Amino acid sequence: MTDTAARALAYVQPFETGRAQDRALLGGKGANLAEMMRIGLPVPPGFTLTTRACNAYQAAGRALPEGLWPQVLCELDALQSKMGKTLGDPDDPLLVSVRSGAAVSMPGMMDTVLNLGLNRRSVVGLARRTGDERFAWDCLRRFVQMFSNVVLGLDMHAFELRLEAARRRAGVQTDAELSAEVLRALVDDYEAEVRRQSGAPFPDDPLAQLKAAVCAVFDSWGNARAVIYRQLHQIADDLGTAVNIQAMVFGNMGGDSATGVAFTRDPNTGEARFFGEFLVNAQGEDVVAGIRTPQPIALLGSAMPAAYEQLRDTCALLERHYADMQDIEFTIERGRLFMLQCRSGKRAPGAAIRIAVDLADEGKITRAQALLRVNCDDLTRSMHTRLGPFPASQQLVRGQPASPGAAVGRVVFHPEKAVQFKAAGETVVLMRPETTPDDIAGMVASVGFVTSRGGTTCHAAIVARGMGKPCVVGCEGLAIDLQTGIALCGDRQVREGDVVSLDGGEGVVAWGEAPVVFAAPTAQFATLLGWADDVRGLKVRANADNPPDARRARGLGAEGIGLCRTEHMFGQGGHHPERMAAVQRMIVADTREERVAALADLKPMQRDDFVGIFEAMDGLPVTIRLLDPPLHEFLPTDDQVAALQATDAATAHRLRRKKAQLHETNPMLGFRGVRLGIVFPEIYRMQVEAIFEAADHAASRGVAVRPEIMIPLVGDVAELRLMRDMVIEVAADLGVHVPYLVGTMIEVPRAALVAEALAGPAEFFSFGTNDLTQTTWGYSRDDAEVGFLAHYLTHKVLAENPFVALDQAGVGQLVKMACEGGRRGRPGLKLGICGEHGGEPSSIAFCASLGLDYVSCSPLRVPVARLAAAHAALRAAGQHASASAV
Amino acid sequence: MTDTAARALAYVQPFETGRAQDRALLGGKGANLAEMMRIGLPVPPGFTLTTRACNAYQAAGRALPEGLWPQVLCELDALQSKMGKTLGDPDDPLLVSVRSGAAVSMPGMMDTVLNLGLNRRSVVGLARRTGDERFAWDCLRRFVQMFSNVVLGLDMHAFELRLEAARRRAGVQTDAELSAEVLRALVDDYEAEVRRQSGAPFPDDPLAQLKAAVCAVFDSWGNARAVIYRQLHQIADDLGTAVNIQAMVFGNMGGDSATGVAFTRDPNTGEARFFGEFLVNAQGEDVVAGIRTPQPIALLGSAMPAAYEQLRDTCALLERHYADMQDIEFTIERGRLFMLQCRSGKRAPGAAIRIAVDLADEGKITRAQALLRVNCDDLTRSMHTRLGPFPASQQLVRGQPASPGAAVGRVVFHPEKAVQFKAAGETVVLMRPETTPDDIAGMVASVGFVTSRGGTTCHAAIVARGMGKPCVVGCEGLAIDLQTGIALCGDRQVREGDVVSLDGGEGVVAWGEAPVVFAAPTAQFATLLGWADDVRGLKVRANADNPPDARRARGLGAEGIGLCRTEHMFGQGGHHPERMAAVQRMIVADTREERVAALADLKPMQRDDFVGIFEAMDGLPVTIRLLDPPLHEFLPTDDQVAALQATDAATAHRLRRKKAQLHETNPMLGFRGVRLGIVFPEIYRMQVEAIFEAADHAASRGVAVRPEIMIPLVGDVAELRLMRDMVIEVAADLGVHVPYLVGTMIEVPRAALVAEALAGPAEFFSFGTNDLTQTTWGYSRDDAEVGFLAHYLTHKVLAENPFVALDQAGVGQLVKMACEGGRRGRPGLKLGICGEHGGEPSSIAFCASLGLDYVSCSPLRVPVARLAAAHAALRAAGQHASASAV
Repeated sequence: MTDTAARALAYVQPFETGRAQDRALLGGKGANLAEMMRIGLPVPPGFTLTTRACNAYQAAGRALPEGLWPQVLCELDALQSKMGKTLGDPDDPLLVSVRSGAAVSMPGMMDTVLNLGLNRRSVVGLARRTGDERFAWDCLRRFVQMFSNVVLGLDMHAFELRLEAARRRAGVQTDAELSAEVLRALVDDYEAEVRRQSGAPFPDDPLAQLKAAVCAVFDSWGNARAVIYRQLHQIADDLGTAVNIQAMVFGNMGGDSATGVAFTRDPNTGEARFFGEFLVNAQGEDVVAGIRTPQPIALLGSAMPAAYEQLRDTCALLERHYADMQDIEFTIERGRLFMLQCRSGKRAPGAAIRIAVDLADEGKITRAQALLRVNCDDLTRSMHTRLGPFPASQQLVRGQPASPGAAVGRVVFHPEKAVQFKAAGETVVLMRPETTPDDIAGMVASVGFVTSRGGTTCHAAIVARGMGKPCVVGCEGLAIDLQTGIALCGDRQVREGDVVSLDGGEGVVAWGEAPVVFAAPTAQFATLLGWADDVRGLKVRANADNPPDARRARGLGAEGIGLCRTEHMFGQGGHHPERMAAVQRMIVADTREERVAALADLKPMQRDDFVGIFEAMDGLPVTIRLLDPPLHEFLPTDDQVAALQATDAATAHRLRRKKAQLHETNPMLGFRGVRLGIVFPEIYRMQVEAIFEAADHAASRGVAVRPEIMIPLVGDVAELRLMRDMVIEVAADLGVHVPYLVGTMIEVPRAALVAEALAGPAEFFSFGTNDLTQTTWGYSRDDAEVGFLAHYLTHKVLAENPFVALDQAGVGQLVKMACEGGRRGRPGLKLGICGEHGGEPSSIAFCASLGLDYVSCSPLRVPVARLAAAHAALRAAGQHASASAV
Repeated sequence: MTDTAARALAYVQPFETGRAQDRALLGGKGANLAEMMRIGLPVPPGFTLTTRACNAYQAAGRALPEGLWPQVLCELDALQSKMGKTLGDPDDPLLVSVRSGAAVSMPGMMDTVLNLGLNRRSVVGLARRTGDERFAWDCLRRFVQMFSNVVLGLDMHAFELRLEAARRRAGVQTDAELSAEVLRALVDDYEAEVRRQSGAPFPDDPLAQLKAAVCAVFDSWGNARAVIYRQLHQIADDLGTAVNIQAMVFGNMGGDSATGVAFTRDPNTGEARFFGEFLVNAQGEDVVAGIRTPQPIALLGSAMPAAYEQLRDTCALLERHYADMQDIEFTIERGRLFMLQCRSGKRAPGAAIRIAVDLADEGKITRAQALLRVNCDDLTRSMHTRLGPFPASQQLVRGQPASPGAAVGRVVFHPEKAVQFKAAGETVVLMRPETTPDDIAGMVASVGFVTSRGGTTCHAAIVARGMGKPCVVGCEGLAIDLQTGIALCGDRQVREGDVVSLDGGEGVVAWGEAPVVFAAPTAQFATLLGWADDVRGLKVRANADNPPDARRARGLGAEGIGLCRTEHMFGQGGHHPERMAAVQRMIVADTREERVAALADLKPMQRDDFVGIFEAMDGLPVTIRLLDPPLHEFLPTDDQVAALQATDAATAHRLRRKKAQLHETNPMLGFRGVRLGIVFPEIYRMQVEAIFEAADHAASRGVAVRPEIMIPLVGDVAELRLMRDMVIEVAADLGVHVPYLVGTMIEVPRAALVAEALAGPAEFFSFGTNDLTQTTWGYSRDDAEVGFLAHYLTHKVLAENPFVALDQAGVGQLVKMACEGGRRGRPGLKLGICGEHGGEPSSIAFCASLGLDYVSCSPLRVPVARLAAAHAALRAAGQHASASAV
């Protein structure tokens, strides 16, 4: 058997033989430890149990597969030789860490055990060898506690109480002040607690400890919080995790020892400054757990200048090596630096953009790479909110800004409460002394987090940045009493259910509801989108119904309006009661004459709206959809009609009769869209007149007007022909001179099926994928999303909500057929999409693959659409490149 | 120019040069006159103005196109030479008839002028030459009256009044008794009336008369009743009509002259007997108009034996020549027979079947031709109803059976009233002294006709047979007074709005509502369908939900059940209150346990239904659809819940809450079909258990059971997999031994689009084209058909209702894709259709073209589907034959 073949079958692999590329097999942590060792960085030796081992373990029904343990023992022998120490040796014991590491980083989701190999015999040897009895007992104390927690699964509260009692008895504030004597007694205490809870003594055989720890890591792949994390981040359940067994180095060996985490750039802002935190005389878990508030990394420079310099150089090297911002863990043992982990650092959405742009500007990556480094969710989240001005008296507390964005919600102190409040429809802010991986469900349910302890690399901060939720940490002015459910802040009391506002970019928490405004986009945001515009082929338009939205959209880069809905101009949405009144007169009209008179009242208002929109979109196309909703949507509710009865019985009667007449069993499949235009041609005629009159008016003032008149809900070419003839007739009657197009929405399956015929009269198609999804699936969106579709998604009957991501296998096939048919009917037919999918990245990529001319989305989605279109172009070019390489 | 080329450009063509095949150019009447002349039958000479002339006339804006009139004059010259008479000659005038004749027979729809060429000068010559002054003035009187009506468009009522006054003055009952003197005075009277109404003298120039008559025929192509007829029979508006100008022969030249119509077989029953009617001393219009009741044709044998024998021989020759039953018009002028028209005779639906089968049995046509001779509408109508037994006292009157079938409705005496009543939702029977072509709209609106005058070839009888509506004519015991709106019948009075029942096969009218039952199919019906079964490839199943329907379907030839809906077994439809109660308990259940308990109550009832159906379908497949409708359909109405409030407030509350919870905006796109099966698996599980238990029970009694379990409304393969797994699990749990299939309905577009994947778990597809049409078009059937779709059909936006005939361009494309995809996924996949289109001929032909295995339709449609499937096979073979011939 060759070396490679042997390794392929092996479950265990020493760090020396791995590389960064092996992350699927070794997990991210193991692969990066191997890589760091390969490029000569100071990494304590060790070996990795592969993800293959984990999967074999799961396949064997949570049992170590045959051959695994002998391989572990063999690598352990090699490690013992390297270190010159033996696990459990009463004279000079080897201690190891056992840490999980999946292929995809899952911070805080998996379990870690440090100091493994200690027991009551070897602790003596450790004390003798290090000359530090207190250190040795501290290690054993930590080990028993951590092992009891993550491997034995015991309740930690009892251990904390015993630790607290020990501090109280000793009259000290921190664990670091506890003497060797006290720690030894505490270990006795802990072991009694283990026996009390588990009915068995604490395992003192180091190999038994190791085996149990390995199994615990493998088991933790299936624990609830890991499963939730994977669901949240759409990570496959069958990747498995690796286990890293590594010789311990000690940051808790006194004042010349330390441990910390660092980022090569600020993960919160993306700023190119060395960033991190450390604790002197501590082990790694102390930093991440947020129990002690660590010191900023810059202070390490004065405390341990040589180690600090080496750390900075190492970090710079790693960033160059990986061509990305790195998140590292280090330990300084008696002045000597050890690297314990490196990985691409999680970063706040805005930071992701800044880092990508800066790395490209620094020549470390290409612009294309920079574009691909920023995912669309990050871009969306980077368009974060902040708190607007509020009175100083409203300020509750300041803390550290840990994840930008503003949030307003009701305070809860317990993660379970967050879930309950959310289920009841409340918006909640989770307020905790600190958060732990067990809180993940509550964090998912909250819109923001506030912690009284921890720094900007604590658990809450990391999770918040990952989720793109606002977070303020280390609010030292906040005293949270979880028992009473009261947080004291100066002389104010915050109780569950109170409303607070937070700004995670500023690190401030306010009392009550403060104004939330959009933050101005950064320079890097604009730069990145400029690069996106350079590579994308797909144009991006916006859906906008009024001049302010049109202006906002143009400011965000919209290249036209893809959907201007005219129903809002008819008063739908409640903003224009005078229009609604005219519309109702039009609907209850018994004769064509009455209807025409009511429409005449509406026309000037519609015309003025169109003038404003044309001006805002000077030089760009504006697609206007003629009236779409069923008329009954414009009638007052039954209660409103009943209220009218007393004052105007005749109108109430007319309204009631008309409501009965217009009632539909399935309004979604009802009397709307072009069907209105055909049965009541005067409605569409009025709208077309308003459009052309507005266009001529704007054109006369020097505006370049490009109206595109869109007929909704067409299913047969005859419908479209009638409407197109009407538009042409109106244009001729009015003597219109502006260029215009007439086209149709494709939003029922039949339109897609007869697209070739539709392309005769249609100069453009616009896919209304919301309705097309409803009709193709036979799902009434409003009903389904709170009904069976919610069940389908929860129970994974469907992997994705087809109203969110365009269903490429079904709806997408109709879109594709319509594109092909339409182009057969009219070569060069203009094609766009204006459903909500037009702002969703996977859908945009699909649209790009079909060669659509544009997508249209809500104004705030325009930047995302620009980036997604660039991603699609780059990926297609990449595939093209690799295809031609073959 | 060759002769053919010249003829191709000609607008006019003498009878001698035409053939039966030229009907598109010469119209049916002209082509058949030419054909009869060609085979040597006695046809008065004449010539035809072609349909091309008509179209040129219409294209010229209702003006004679250049060159037409000179051609007419040229042919008229030739006719004058042949006859040795000249139009308008004061000594021996030629008289001609001017008659319309379109390519497609439109009886009564177009206008005819007889005796053209007469005026005050030539009438003297006619009298002298015929030696019959009375005859000559009778001709002139008829001509002035007819010309005034159809060419000048004057009001006939005034003419009738003057005729009546003349009869009164002369003291006679009939026109035939009026003397030459009286007729001459009547012509004076008529001419005065013409001047009074038109302000101009009656045109006395024969050529001016001829030109005006030709134009009137061309104009009549566009008159209202012709347009309605074409709409009704889907005849293109641009075919145009020809005009036949033919030398007059006279049935009104005394007691040795007669005129009549005859059918080579009985058009009412199809019996092979010479059938017809004649009037002595009359002109053709007298017979058809139904004003005088004519004599049965057999009596002609005794009155004019030689002419009768010649007529019978000629008819037999024509039937052999055309290989079809012929409808002919003849005139006997002083003992000499002339043939004035022949055409394939209209016949009652049952007669169509009998004639086709008899002609094939007689060796005159092949069986394939016989099948193609009977259209599906005829077959449907032949399955006509009759009145069941009713008390003798209920009988109102007897008349002649003119068109079979039973009808019950409210009496109206005026066609306009029929239209009004119909629009108000009433079912009406039109009762008239006689009907005329002007009554066509009212006849369309009525379910049956009763006339007091006329024979079985009168207008009402012809139209009724064409429409397949029941008709009783010649009810001499019925005295209808149109002025008072009362029909006297013995001592009974029938008034507008009274309900009557009629049986057009028996020729009886009953007072009030008599029972209506289905007539037993004839032997020919069974024979024809047997031939259909021999040629068709497509199987025919029925949609049936209970044992009686299943037995009925099998009796009509169903080869299995294609759709057994289980919702009726759940009490939907109101037949099973005890089931409905259990279903409601199931729906309002708050826990799965309660639900399961309620379902357990339903299971035995479902099981018993299935046993009965399996027994009825012994040896044949039964496709059972699991529960499809939304649960709220099973809950009581708001009013019912309100009624419950007093007696059981708790249940009322539960029901109200559940109704609110299950309310859907668009139930058609809602929580139904497989969605129920996934969210409440216990419902489908109960149904599957009931199916398998019933199957095993029936099998144990020797029944060959072939259940096919069908999952409705599937849109994604995951849904189907879950349900299929459940079925397999139930089968395993119960230890089922009968062979069974699991398949899916294709009724939302997405199912068609992902058909290849669905064919993995599906062993069959059944197209639910009702829902597929709703979702593909975005039409809510119940809303649309009374709303915008009705408007679309009336205004011809759509040519056909897609819920009636499968929309091949749209829905049909999805069906085609699903067939192709399904067969890719599972070669040999069983394919069927169970929407209502499964019983519609054009849809069946489409299904056959896709190679579906079967169609399934309502039991009563099974015979039609068998015939339509045979038609499809024959036409495909015909196309194949002509394709291979090329």
